[in-house]
Amino acid sequence: MKHNGIITPMITPFNKKGEIDYAATETLITYLKKIGVSGLFPLGSTGLFPFLREEERKKYLQFVANHASGMKIYAGIGSASTQISSDLAKHCNDLPVDVMVLMPPYYIQPGQKEILKHFDEVLKNVKKELFIYNIPQLSGTFIQPDTVLKLKENYSQITGLKESSGDMRYFSKLLEFSGPDFSIFQGQDDLLLASLALGADGGVCGLTNFSNPVIRCYKAYRNGDMAEARRIQFSEINSIMKVLNADRFPSGYYHAFYTRNRIDGGYRSPMMEPDDDSKKHSEEFLSKLKD
Amino acid sequence: MKHNGIITPMITPFNKKGEIDYAATETLITYLKKIGVSGLFPLGSTGLFPFLREEERKKYLQFVANHASGMKIYAGIGSASTQISSDLAKHCNDLPVDVMVLMPPYYIQPGQKEILKHFDEVLKNVKKELFIYNIPQLSGTFIQPDTVLKLKENYSQITGLKESSGDMRYFSKLLEFSGPDFSIFQGQDDLLLASLALGADGGVCGLTNFSNPVIRCYKAYRNGDMAEARRIQFSEINSIMKVLNADRFPSGYYHAFYTRNRIDGGYRSPMMEPDDDSKKHSEEFLSKLKD
Amino acid sequence: MKHNGIITPMITPFNKKGEIDYAATETLITYLKKIGVSGLFPLGSTGLFPFLREEERKKYLQFVANHASGMKIYAGIGSASTQISSDLAKHCNDLPVDVMVLMPPYYIQPGQKEILKHFDEVLKNVKKELFIYNIPQLSGTFIQPDTVLKLKENYSQITGLKESSGDMRYFSKLLEFSGPDFSIFQGQDDLLLASLALGADGGVCGLTNFSNPVIRCYKAYRNGDMAEARRIQFSEINSIMKVLNADRFPSGYYHAFYTRNRIDGGYRSPMMEPDDDSKKHSEEFLSKLKD
Amino acid sequence: MKHNGIITPMITPFNKKGEIDYAATETLITYLKKIGVSGLFPLGSTGLFPFLREEERKKYLQFVANHASGMKIYAGIGSASTQISSDLAKHCNDLPVDVMVLMPPYYIQPGQKEILKHFDEVLKNVKKELFIYNIPQLSGTFIQPDTVLKLKENYSQITGLKESSGDMRYFSKLLEFSGPDFSIFQGQDDLLLASLALGADGGVCGLTNFSNPVIRCYKAYRNGDMAEARRIQFSEINSIMKVLNADRFPSGYYHAFYTRNRIDGGYRSPMMEPDDDSKKHSEEFLSKLKD
Repeated sequence: MKHNGIITPMITPFNKKGEIDYAATETLITYLKKIGVSGLFPLGSTGLFPFLREEERKKYLQFVANHASGMKIYAGIGSASTQISSDLAKHCNDLPVDVMVLMPPYYIQPGQKEILKHFDEVLKNVKKELFIYNIPQLSGTFIQPDTVLKLKENYSQITGLKESSGDMRYFSKLLEFSGPDFSIFQGQDDLLLASLALGADGGVCGLTNFSNPVIRCYKAYRNGDMAEARRIQFSEINSIMKVLNADRFPSGYYHAFYTRNRIDGGYRSPMMEPDDDSKKHSEEFLSKLKD
Repeated sequence: MKHNGIITPMITPFNKKGEIDYAATETLITYLKKIGVSGLFPLGSTGLFPFLREEERKKYLQFVANHASGMKIYAGIGSASTQISSDLAKHCNDLPVDVMVLMPPYYIQPGQKEILKHFDEVLKNVKKELFIYNIPQLSGTFIQPDTVLKLKENYSQITGLKESSGDMRYFSKLLEFSGPDFSIFQGQDDLLLASLALGADGGVCGLTNFSNPVIRCYKAYRNGDMAEARRIQFSEINSIMKVLNADRFPSGYYHAFYTRNRIDGGYRSPMMEPDDDSKKHSEEFLSKLKD
Repeated sequence: MKHNGIITPMITPFNKKGEIDYAATETLITYLKKIGVSGLFPLGSTGLFPFLREEERKKYLQFVANHASGMKIYAGIGSASTQISSDLAKHCNDLPVDVMVLMPPYYIQPGQKEILKHFDEVLKNVKKELFIYNIPQLSGTFIQPDTVLKLKENYSQITGLKESSGDMRYFSKLLEFSGPDFSIFQGQDDLLLASLALGADGGVCGLTNFSNPVIRCYKAYRNGDMAEARRIQFSEINSIMKVLNADRFPSGYYHAFYTRNRIDGGYRSPMMEPDDDSKKHSEEFLSKLKD
Repeated sequence: MKHNGIITPMITPFNKKGEIDYAATETLITYLKKIGVSGLFPLGSTGLFPFLREEERKKYLQFVANHASGMKIYAGIGSASTQISSDLAKHCNDLPVDVMVLMPPYYIQPGQKEILKHFDEVLKNVKKELFIYNIPQLSGTFIQPDTVLKLKENYSQITGLKESSGDMRYFSKLLEFSGPDFSIFQGQDDLLLASLALGADGGVCGLTNFSNPVIRCYKAYRNGDMAEARRIQFSEINSIMKVLNADRFPSGYYHAFYTRNRIDGGYRSPMMEPDDDSKKHSEEFLSKLKD
């Protein structure tokens, strides 16, 4: 079955001590349901999964999966270790998770054949659907189009991918693999409309953690209102991103969520609160949002 | 006290199932003692630390520290998570470890202030010396010279660094911080002699896992025999590296160690055995080594 | 007045001795008129302007401007030297040229203020419209969006730009400057449809030198037939580009033009004919084209 | 015959109108003779050759060659055009030039086979020695070691190279080609000592345009005084470079030459005078120089 719509790469809210804040997570999920998000993606890069221990990750995935309010769950099981990703996969088999999301191992940089091996070993433990996650600016490695094709053809569990490189020529090459059994999502909010125009099925868009322009842009496009979709893409989405990009990713997303929800939240080390200028600039912007 | 000499960034030997092979580790340590290595660096990048679980890392550090045969122990405590690095530091406080080695967090790419925070939090748990580890091609981030200077000046435990970027202009900038209380090691075997000539204290050289030219090059330089040091650097060290670089790092080092010690070793996933051509080329080369 | 449509970055046909072939140039122009190109861009990167002497460039611009058959002329006046670009501008003032096209100087890499100075000095000699040309992969320098904005605001002659970086996030930032007096063209054929969807005015597309899918894609988009535009973008345009990219830019474009027009053309040194495999693959592809 | 010593990549002095200042050129040559430079390299990158017209280049090479005061002349004949480089070579055949210096064509980025063709065609016109010039950060292309080897083996005129990439691992690979008939020069002042230690024959060092530490460092090394060579490399050479690097290359070198010689010099467009902060910082530094 085809996936589409807007998925939220969820922040993982923390309290002042840097511990996971489950109440704030419920606040977030309630908001996402309200604005019309179609899927939740906990423990992606925005969710700072590398800063969490394995047990924390399992508990958090369980919590989100059990509070999904009908939205689909795309659970991040990425790790530098094939074994840890495999264990996270086994854990997700027993949860109400719809799709697992797996990236190549990182730090030690794999070649394409090592990427294939990593996916092969993890997939032995996956009893649900799995999405490929390409994010070379963090993982250090591009998954070559040929590798994507091999994965897609060899494993029936693989039903889609999230592509966050920001490189539209590469994205175009992957779009050739799009089909009824393979869904393709753009992972960069500022490339959403261009991607939809080329045939992407949806977006995994971080701005939804605290605002709804991405949702409205997607709906306008699906309703054939290209002018309105374009207006939102440029005047709203790209404008917010400029403000957030003044901070080091992803602290701006955390600050924006805390600010809009009047939560006295924290930052897990070594992530730090945005500096005063960034916060001020961001807060002025957030005060004008209306959803 | 000043550190110097050649330190080995140890491979972590595995058996065919991908489990740590402790007997092979003893074989390795015995060899390193024999060829004149001055320090052991377990669980650096060559040791594939990101593929090991935290408990495996603790057990392995304990084993190596307890079998060091008088060589100094430089224990890798790097992680994408500040908390895990802190826990590894606490563990090492109770072991016969001389120096801990810490890199910036990776995947989520820190700014310089986040690097400072990461080091600050981990250092609260470090009761021994600590070396800074710069390896931007894997960690994704350069530690700026100013950040190195701040760390050196603010923390008495910090007594040196390993620099593996391969960028000699950057390395030159760090050498300005060299002094009786701050030792600087080159982490790339093919830049050893150039680094010593500029005043580096020593090298962290992977080729020592299975051969001794690096040791002989270091001694020739220290004895003032520049011509011999240069001959070894070009004709032996650089030649071996070319052969090993045909494989994806660090599988060639594992294969070379297994081959020279007639060990039927394995590779932890997703690392793979070098391909047949690489193995053949490497084995021809290894058969000529004599130490 | 607004510019739009598809402009051809013309190859400069050569004979076997590497001299400019004017008859073949007429053949090319006749073809471009036939397929519906709206503008000719002689002596851009595809036209290999850096391989031509200044006098050759002047003569060639004059020839093309005088044989334009009603298509607009966008004349490339780029150079590493401000003085040479200025002299080319003076030359174009006296020709039936509509727009001059200027890039930052290259080799010696300018900062943004040097780019502004270069444009300022050349513009003193420009009595027509001028387009900014951004092509950082060849010129070595990105023109920052702020610099584009300053140029646009300070010089009434500047009425548009050609953007060939291939970076859609950068392109999106420039699209914010789009307006009735400022036209924006995508310079990469494989990003044409995405760019039109975001509001670009047209494309400067090398494939038109020997084929018409780009023209049909543009028309389909303008007619609101998104499905057909998408089909052409993926199945025709991107497919041809893959074949041509097997050769070193831009030799594949020259070979394709010569082949389709049964011209026994040549390559100015150091450009070389594509290798036999590339030629064969390309010729198979070209034999199926029908326009 | 082997080349060695320190060669100066000469600035091309300009007057306030941006015209070449021949009197200042004589001042420069007199200074270079005095401090012990062994060769003059007019019209390299520091000499801003791409900003000069072909006729200016010929005249300037003639002037410098005729005023060399016994220093060897290494004449820059680089161009994006094979034809222009060939014509410059023919011109140099008739001048008291010792060596011509040729880089790959730039802007249009050649592959290795196009580089070979470029050198082959130019060399047909070269009746003297020729040096290969590698400077990928400006030319856009690395000359691969295999290509260097082919050039060295196929053309008896080729007797050396200048390597300015700043990449010591690449430089190490080229040093393997060093021999009685092939001299290798380091083009980055801050890598001089490391390069000499590895066996380089000398340096092409821009700081000599206005100061002598590079000369003293070279002599100290040749005299076996490694400690003094190291002191000069770090405390003098690297310190000056930091100051000059605050400006956009190469304007700081021009400003330093003008300042030390009390010349009211200028900058050819689009090069600009360093900004006030850079000038002040540089002048403080220059006032302490003593040669």
